[in-house]
Amino acid sequence: MSQPETRAETRAETRADTRADTHRMLITIEYDGTGLVGWQRQNNGPSVQEYLEAAAEKLTSRKTPIQGSGRTDAGVHASAQAAHLDVPTRLTTHAVVNGLNAWLNCPQISVLTARRVGQDFNARFDATERSYLYRILDRRTPSALRRHHVWHHRTKLNVEAMQKAAQYLIGNHDFTSFRATGCQANSPVRTLNSLSVTRLEDEIHIRAHARSFLYHQIRNFAGSLALVGTGKWQAEDIRMVLEACDRTKAGPTAPPQGLYLTEIEYPPESLAQK
Amino acid sequence: MSQPETRAETRAETRADTRADTHRMLITIEYDGTGLVGWQRQNNGPSVQEYLEAAAEKLTSRKTPIQGSGRTDAGVHASAQAAHLDVPTRLTTHAVVNGLNAWLNCPQISVLTARRVGQDFNARFDATERSYLYRILDRRTPSALRRHHVWHHRTKLNVEAMQKAAQYLIGNHDFTSFRATGCQANSPVRTLNSLSVTRLEDEIHIRAHARSFLYHQIRNFAGSLALVGTGKWQAEDIRMVLEACDRTKAGPTAPPQGLYLTEIEYPPESLAQK
Repeated sequence: MSQPETRAETRAETRADTRADTHRMLITIEYDGTGLVGWQRQNNGPSVQEYLEAAAEKLTSRKTPIQGSGRTDAGVHASAQAAHLDVPTRLTTHAVVNGLNAWLNCPQISVLTARRVGQDFNARFDATERSYLYRILDRRTPSALRRHHVWHHRTKLNVEAMQKAAQYLIGNHDFTSFRATGCQANSPVRTLNSLSVTRLEDEIHIRAHARSFLYHQIRNFAGSLALVGTGKWQAEDIRMVLEACDRTKAGPTAPPQGLYLTEIEYPPESLAQK
Repeated sequence: MSQPETRAETRAETRADTRADTHRMLITIEYDGTGLVGWQRQNNGPSVQEYLEAAAEKLTSRKTPIQGSGRTDAGVHASAQAAHLDVPTRLTTHAVVNGLNAWLNCPQISVLTARRVGQDFNARFDATERSYLYRILDRRTPSALRRHHVWHHRTKLNVEAMQKAAQYLIGNHDFTSFRATGCQANSPVRTLNSLSVTRLEDEIHIRAHARSFLYHQIRNFAGSLALVGTGKWQAEDIRMVLEACDRTKAGPTAPPQGLYLTEIEYPPESLAQK
């Protein structure tokens, strides 16, 4: 999830890197986070960014940094992460998608689309909304087929109570109670555009939309909403937890494998090629 | 898929094994076939049956054979395979489900339900209908999240043409054209109760229902129906392929990872405890 940085500084670096013979591409990427350390390059294991940058270097025959819209944690999935990179002008969008997929040395990652954008476009700073889905399987027995793709909760959850509780979290709030201790964001205040809890067969789906999120914010929402779903907490308790601005008052952090980054939105003007 | 055997012989063996202090349970099992050699015990790798029988032995402290409704191939999945086993009478259905799952040494297998049945019940011979689903992802780019769970077909398929073609296969036919050379069934004649082709977002779902199937029958259907979906074959060509009774006239065998055993049906009288 997005980390604070000086936008002006990053823009300057980006410009210095831009060569006359390249154009900028916005790509969308699907990945299965199982066994990966997350989006961002790290020393302790394989990351999505590392695999993609290796593929891009093969495709373009030069070092090609790839800037994502934000980080995702180890084990977290994406159905459509967004990122930008600069490629030689001879490469069409079709060649970028097929070329990256052909060079990707990891079947857990797939490039879905590419689109030409202006040289100033930035996948991280231009994003106006980030969407996530958190999937909970609430049944007695574990799922063999979905074992890496849902949080398995052994008792049935009350979806109506969870949906009611979610309403207290929507809007502009200090989300300290749902923020991981390691969060590097300057401010715990965020605006949650929407948060919904619905049932789809044997799963409960929590969908969250905001310009940006704090570290572990959605997994912490899921952990607390599940407590409401069990009946241990009332829906109204979520408001008190939120107002306490105290991480110890909220529920546990739900595990990473239930979380999916599903969409990054950009305003049309940021996508236009100037 | 079911292999021929003398029913009377198997019944006799079953009776000899039955002890007075056991009762028979019908269980349903979900499994992810990725990396497994299939349902049946084999010398070349881990099977679902082997894992389940090891768990049952731990749970009951005695050798406990588990008889499935039929085989599934290496890499094929099940959302609800059925099988029967005899367990000590002290074990309730709840204890069987929880106990087997606790002892199962493989997260790719999960026991979903258990139900007491009569001592004569046989998961293989009493089954009156078997249901399968075959999933095809028809889009240009591969799916990272579903890479082990669909057949990836790189071009769009015409679902209406496939559905039209499927109608020619329904009913009682000699299915030699869709039968693998290794098939051990005495007869190539089967009655296909239904076969439907529908679209669900970016996937094509083929659903097949019959009392029993020939070896590779559904994967061979999928391979031929995909040829209709591309436009290479007309829907009517499927009828000629069927009537040719010649495996070489049909399409290729679709890969195992798109196939799911979804349901086994038993008549109420076979489930009753006599």
